[in-house]
Amino acid sequence: MEKFEINILGCGAALPTPRRLSSSQIVNIREKLFMLDCAEGAQMALRRSRLSFSHLQAIFLTHLHGDHVFGLMGLLSTFGLLGRIQDLHIYGPQDLQRVFQPQIDYFCADSPYQIILHEVDSKTPQIIYEDRSVVISTLPLKHRIPCCGYLFREKPTPRHIRRDVIDFYQIPISQINNIKAGLDWTTEDGTFIPNDRLTTPPDPVRSYAYCTDTAYRPQLAEMLKDVTCIYHEGTFTQEHEILAKKTFHSTAAQAAQIALDAQACRLIIGHFSSRYKSEDVLLHEAQQIFPNTILAEDGMKVVL
Amino acid sequence: MEKFEINILGCGAALPTPRRLSSSQIVNIREKLFMLDCAEGAQMALRRSRLSFSHLQAIFLTHLHGDHVFGLMGLLSTFGLLGRIQDLHIYGPQDLQRVFQPQIDYFCADSPYQIILHEVDSKTPQIIYEDRSVVISTLPLKHRIPCCGYLFREKPTPRHIRRDVIDFYQIPISQINNIKAGLDWTTEDGTFIPNDRLTTPPDPVRSYAYCTDTAYRPQLAEMLKDVTCIYHEGTFTQEHEILAKKTFHSTAAQAAQIALDAQACRLIIGHFSSRYKSEDVLLHEAQQIFPNTILAEDGMKVVL
Repeated sequence: MEKFEINILGCGAALPTPRRLSSSQIVNIREKLFMLDCAEGAQMALRRSRLSFSHLQAIFLTHLHGDHVFGLMGLLSTFGLLGRIQDLHIYGPQDLQRVFQPQIDYFCADSPYQIILHEVDSKTPQIIYEDRSVVISTLPLKHRIPCCGYLFREKPTPRHIRRDVIDFYQIPISQINNIKAGLDWTTEDGTFIPNDRLTTPPDPVRSYAYCTDTAYRPQLAEMLKDVTCIYHEGTFTQEHEILAKKTFHSTAAQAAQIALDAQACRLIIGHFSSRYKSEDVLLHEAQQIFPNTILAEDGMKVVL
Repeated sequence: MEKFEINILGCGAALPTPRRLSSSQIVNIREKLFMLDCAEGAQMALRRSRLSFSHLQAIFLTHLHGDHVFGLMGLLSTFGLLGRIQDLHIYGPQDLQRVFQPQIDYFCADSPYQIILHEVDSKTPQIIYEDRSVVISTLPLKHRIPCCGYLFREKPTPRHIRRDVIDFYQIPISQINNIKAGLDWTTEDGTFIPNDRLTTPPDPVRSYAYCTDTAYRPQLAEMLKDVTCIYHEGTFTQEHEILAKKTFHSTAAQAAQIALDAQACRLIIGHFSSRYKSEDVLLHEAQQIFPNTILAEDGMKVVL
């Protein structure tokens, strides 16, 4: 299967520590890299991850709280110093331009590449990026300021040719793409060969949803139907459910409820409040509801 | 002697790496902390250093290039989250307000403390801070944009009382401060006791100069006469002297020449270009001119 990996650069909440940065991830789809949030220190973590800076296609910011964006200017400057010439598109909610364009104009005036800011409507799900292999759309979230998650969905791939059967019936190369697309074949002597004898099923379509920061929002599950993997903030334990509601964050159990309702395959929880000595209690509360949950960790790679 | 220590949080040039942050230091004078520059990741390095966030008095920025300021917003946010209520004064050259006030207004709107920006004249040396124990003044530097270094000079302390001699002559407590200040004493029977029998000399007055980023500027040495310790950028080797001049940086040898001409006691070189696999060549070139040179290192503490 083609590469579809999540690299977690940082998964702490607002207070970064030497052990854990604030929010930032890289989604690696066939060596095209997409960044999700960009906390302070993200560029150093990206370097540690050994992913290629030059393969970064675009940056998607969930919202304009410092712990999700304070690494942006440093990263943009470094791209300039590394001689990037490819345009870089940055997506984020309302105020993205007002807040960052002046800093970009000041600090990146001599940059050899163009930085293009796109404000997205964080209230209505919409497709904001599409290429040969992936479609990226927004997921409205509920936070203190405009905020949206992002959903990465692979495009369906063609069926796999069964080379031995193709050879046996001496089917010409010109027909291979039709057969990959699902067509049957009739030999010159009139024998009908159904497509499922000529091919095996395509790879399953994988998807990844990044949902942070957000209060518990049950209707989010509908938009995440059958998603392969969800990253959902689980900032607090159930004990702090009222605090979660008040600060527009979720408990680990609420993250698990979203994954359960969405019938997702896997759940990663993150954005841990620094008040917990160990995140095991968060993991335990989530697994009670959705067993296939793991804790995010800085430097972790999740292969879909 | 009272504490006067330099804590180097980062000493790399423009490209931060997992091993070396860009420019940032803490000067610790009697547990009052002063920050010099604030590169991305400075708050994490400050936490690693185990210095107290709440003891930070003020921040001094040499110039508004990203590798000297991109950690500022994160640090200011963290102070807010930690519940700081004490005002924080930030000093830096021209444009400080234009560049940072909008970001502070946006990201620190709910901060429980006040952030006060002071633009300093980077062309004329001037005293910008003074308390009971230290005077801080600016040092004009020569870079591509307005830039100044900072000079920390302890205030002279009184002479030390010789307790045994005081007791011997039964000098009353009311006179101790006069004697510390240098006055002599005449006993009731008319015996004259010169001050230097009653006291030992005061601690030497120590000073620290932070000079980065700058092209070689010979007249800087006059302002640094007899300074205890100079930190001066030594970005390049002599081989790259022309590049140094073109980019308004210094070679390690030029840094050493400044220290020699100033008759300083010690020199720390830093702001190393990432092109050198080892900085030993920089150290070697500097020590040829000024033997008491050391290489800066992230996490290093220098006791004056």
